[in-house]
Amino acid sequence: MITLHHCVSARSFRPLWALEEIGVPYELKMLPFPPRVMARAFLDTNPLGTVPALKDGALFMTESAAICQYLAARFSPGVLDVASHEADFGRYLNFLHFGEATLTFPQTLVLRYTHFEPPERRQPQVVEDYAKWFHARLRTLAPLLERQDFLCAGRFTAADISVGYALMLAEHLGLSDRFAEPIARYWSRLREREGFILALRAQDAAARAQGVSPVPAPDTR
Amino acid sequence: MITLHHCVSARSFRPLWALEEIGVPYELKMLPFPPRVMARAFLDTNPLGTVPALKDGALFMTESAAICQYLAARFSPGVLDVASHEADFGRYLNFLHFGEATLTFPQTLVLRYTHFEPPERRQPQVVEDYAKWFHARLRTLAPLLERQDFLCAGRFTAADISVGYALMLAEHLGLSDRFAEPIARYWSRLREREGFILALRAQDAAARAQGVSPVPAPDTR
Repeated sequence: MITLHHCVSARSFRPLWALEEIGVPYELKMLPFPPRVMARAFLDTNPLGTVPALKDGALFMTESAAICQYLAARFSPGVLDVASHEADFGRYLNFLHFGEATLTFPQTLVLRYTHFEPPERRQPQVVEDYAKWFHARLRTLAPLLERQDFLCAGRFTAADISVGYALMLAEHLGLSDRFAEPIARYWSRLREREGFILALRAQDAAARAQGVSPVPAPDTR
Repeated sequence: MITLHHCVSARSFRPLWALEEIGVPYELKMLPFPPRVMARAFLDTNPLGTVPALKDGALFMTESAAICQYLAARFSPGVLDVASHEADFGRYLNFLHFGEATLTFPQTLVLRYTHFEPPERRQPQVVEDYAKWFHARLRTLAPLLERQDFLCAGRFTAADISVGYALMLAEHLGLSDRFAEPIARYWSRLREREGFILALRAQDAAARAQGVSPVPAPDTR
């Protein structure tokens, strides 16, 4: 049985969404945010103190986009996964990383220095630098998403989950007003997917059942 | 023929190192740093303005760890690559992402706000926050590297290139004095590899031949 440790709306939403798209059984363990402060015992499970933390037998993983690729390759070949013999294999890998390293990390700086630091440690310049950074990088996807519904391989894949989570976080941070039209439409397509809706429901139900606030507190790592 | 766009000691060192480990022919195009400012014409090749930018026929990639996985899967199965049927497949994917998203990005903040911003925009608090962040995350690798020479699969893989570059960048930034002993020894093992030495030589020769300063100016993206 797969176990996923998750905080509401944090990066761990990526593997949760992948699990619901695939339909594989899993156990969802909810944590208050940030877990390294609010749930010290979690450090015994994951010394990094971050979510996601996923266990699948002897395997332990902590990187959200890597987990999506792993789940896709193991449980969804030819559907969520793009195999190395497919023409879009390289593009698939690129978007898996792009969603996290290029589109999500800059937003966590916006979040940290507007919401999570005490007032005297807030950094409006850094917030501005990285909001600008995020929009400039995101804009490069618009020509592609003008021509096609998903990022690669002519279908919805784990790469769309990686980039899609960055758009979800942008919405939470109030950055989605500036999405170019093709990106706004892409984000609508993603949100309407059954797997996305099921993941939101699973998150909400588990938060209520386990006594964790269901209000989003996205991850700053 | 593969073409790699590269700046001295930037993230694009990862694919360069992978190419030298594999021994596949490639063309190396050097750019001054940062290319989006110093080589505006490069924006026609890569609208992100970042390195690496890799072309392999119709394929275009920009994420350094993704390119390493791509090159490994296509040109080095069973050696640099870890296949999905191997027991360490999930760990391999995790370290590929960990090297970039968790270990490299925080260092680019240190670099940006100590070296690349003008004095009035420097941010000592952010530098301190993310240097601390880097060391805390890196430390979690020490127990593993006490027990084994490489990160996964019982051999040197593309995941070691992903994490190895983060250690190279730390050395450039003066952060390597605080490496725990098993991490310092791992970094020595990596630096002694023929592929690493050949990549340094190729970088130096191409920089001189193409009139770019061979002095490192690591990537802030």
